[in-house]
Amino acid sequence: MKKQKLLINGERLKETLERFADFGRTPNNGVTRLALSEEDRLARDYFCSCCKDLGMSIQIDDMGNIYATLAGVEDNPPIVIGSHMDTVKKGGRFDGILGVVAGLEIARTLVDNNIKPKIPLTIVNITNEEGARFEPSMMASGVLSGKFDKATMSKKKDVEGITFNEALQTIGYNGDIGARLKEATAFLELHIEQGPILEKESLSIGVVECVLGMVCYEITVTGESDHAGTTPMYIRKDALFTANELITKARERLSALDSDLVFTMGRMNVFPNIHTVIPNQVVFSLEARHKEANVIQQVEAIIQELTHHTSEQNCIVQVEKLWDRQTVWFNREICNLLEQSTQSLDYSYKRMVSGAGHDAQFLASYIPTAMIFVPSVNGKSHCEEELTTWEDCEKGVNVLLETVLSYFNE
Amino acid sequence: MKKQKLLINGERLKETLERFADFGRTPNNGVTRLALSEEDRLARDYFCSCCKDLGMSIQIDDMGNIYATLAGVEDNPPIVIGSHMDTVKKGGRFDGILGVVAGLEIARTLVDNNIKPKIPLTIVNITNEEGARFEPSMMASGVLSGKFDKATMSKKKDVEGITFNEALQTIGYNGDIGARLKEATAFLELHIEQGPILEKESLSIGVVECVLGMVCYEITVTGESDHAGTTPMYIRKDALFTANELITKARERLSALDSDLVFTMGRMNVFPNIHTVIPNQVVFSLEARHKEANVIQQVEAIIQELTHHTSEQNCIVQVEKLWDRQTVWFNREICNLLEQSTQSLDYSYKRMVSGAGHDAQFLASYIPTAMIFVPSVNGKSHCEEELTTWEDCEKGVNVLLETVLSYFNE
Repeated sequence: MKKQKLLINGERLKETLERFADFGRTPNNGVTRLALSEEDRLARDYFCSCCKDLGMSIQIDDMGNIYATLAGVEDNPPIVIGSHMDTVKKGGRFDGILGVVAGLEIARTLVDNNIKPKIPLTIVNITNEEGARFEPSMMASGVLSGKFDKATMSKKKDVEGITFNEALQTIGYNGDIGARLKEATAFLELHIEQGPILEKESLSIGVVECVLGMVCYEITVTGESDHAGTTPMYIRKDALFTANELITKARERLSALDSDLVFTMGRMNVFPNIHTVIPNQVVFSLEARHKEANVIQQVEAIIQELTHHTSEQNCIVQVEKLWDRQTVWFNREICNLLEQSTQSLDYSYKRMVSGAGHDAQFLASYIPTAMIFVPSVNGKSHCEEELTTWEDCEKGVNVLLETVLSYFNE
Repeated sequence: MKKQKLLINGERLKETLERFADFGRTPNNGVTRLALSEEDRLARDYFCSCCKDLGMSIQIDDMGNIYATLAGVEDNPPIVIGSHMDTVKKGGRFDGILGVVAGLEIARTLVDNNIKPKIPLTIVNITNEEGARFEPSMMASGVLSGKFDKATMSKKKDVEGITFNEALQTIGYNGDIGARLKEATAFLELHIEQGPILEKESLSIGVVECVLGMVCYEITVTGESDHAGTTPMYIRKDALFTANELITKARERLSALDSDLVFTMGRMNVFPNIHTVIPNQVVFSLEARHKEANVIQQVEAIIQELTHHTSEQNCIVQVEKLWDRQTVWFNREICNLLEQSTQSLDYSYKRMVSGAGHDAQFLASYIPTAMIFVPSVNGKSHCEEELTTWEDCEKGVNVLLETVLSYFNE
């Protein structure tokens, strides 16, 4: 007979998520809880009080990251579960907070069942993942992992001119540099997918193998402005027509590269942008993401070749790389462990990639790290309609609990 | 032996054009002489004094139009020659003013040679053709021809809130409604081409048969905004990709219609216009010009069919007609007369169309009207580089003189 699995309390998880959504809830049932805002402070205070109720110890580091630890039988590096509590403006009730509340629900389940962790369990709330108030995004995990400079980040200002450091002082979460996360047995981040794949494929869990590498280029087409009424077609240097040809060519070639490649021309500006004047300049962005570096290299070659584009418009085409980032691969053993936990719970799942960035990608540089995703209804996030079913939230947390327990049973 | 032709004084024409360019000359040898500005007043005053020196009588109407008349032997409706003295901001030394100075040079030539006109010769300066200070363009000719309402136009304001009527009072050119141009034997407007055709074909004179009819549409493509990193290509509703397909399709079909058709997508706005977000809306203009109404009808059919465009992007395409105007055909007999004059002077020429709008197109509704063009170097106008060679200016005025004389010899 199969042993009865320990499961979390789904109803309590739901209530806790709704309780946190009250800290910044919008009229349309979304959440605005910008980093280090009053709503963030209230959510942090509530989180700390919940953890203290469980007998957990609280530490705050100099970036305002909160670590709530349930002591272990052995004093090994902790298993860390967490994500972020901040949101974008008019964001949703699940992005970030789900990964923090997951840790809380797991701690509650352990305490309820009188399970003393074999090794310490730490829940982390990482400050300012969104970068919506203070750029850049993933600021605190960037500082923890040495990607960003602390002094520079402290001086980052919001639109009202308040610095990150001032805001941190104001909400009373400016802690000690010694409290920073230095080592861990594992970091596990549960997050909503923010894309449509799991829902489309009717799956509950995504075991995330990597965060996609990407490149972002800007393409500038320069032609000549002339009168739209008096200039025959055959002598025009229409920058919009040329940009149009470039987009068609790039789409054709990029589409043929690899079906997993995603690419987007999200920004496009036309000059002088007057209906009676032939455009003399068009500037557009082209960003592409893929897990394999060699595919990204081929993307870059295709973009570079756009400069050799010839057409009767005789425009000049220039391309400039704005930035890129490498694919971050998560810890293979932890991915396998998460997969085994999912299988043991009989949840449908797939291995997948993350097209969006997460704190986990920075922490992965010095801590064994992996992520799991739960489905986003209609693939939506960063908006008030953002939704993950309570059932999927519960499954995600159960996978984490099962994985934590597997560490205790080693 | 061929009779010696009467010709204008090319050197004097050049000097007069340069003299007028002093009223608002820019550092880069262009002209800024906005309608009813102080520069416009100075130019008007100088024009009136030149005409008075020739014994011409001056009348001003209630739109500030100036009529300078050299009395005729017979009191028939006058031959009217003219154009406008206002310019756009940082415009050129030829657009408009050439057609007014042409009249002045012809009057001077007649007086020099003791030729008393058989019928009166009137030089007209038409107020605010450009619409650069007070919209719309061709304002005063629009009022003369009943296209625009005088009361509405009087209240039009410039960027500083000054009304047309106030500005007219300020420069002292608010005349009498009774002075308005009511009838004429012919209205002849000499203008720079503002396009590259004459120069490309090494021709000196264009006999203008019509001002092109046109339509202007706005096309709106609505898709769905999603995360550029997490949304697979196959389920995107990318409004930019769809707009790109529409532009390609429209270009192909419009290009096949008629080689004289000109069409332009001059304005295009992408939303939300962020490089990491799939565009959910693209709005672009499509304007097309052709002399034949049935070609314009085919253009409109092609634009309407864009709404049936299907692609894997599944976006919604809407089209809206912003405005249109019919082709204005000039008086065939006057066109023939202008052509004969050009031939008799042995100047190279062609019959052509005007893609740009001119006062003549409104006056043509009630006065026998035609235009001639002289070449624009590189097709440029409405800019400081605007240039027509002195030789071509002279030829243009000689064609008008020859045409005026032909009326006297009838």
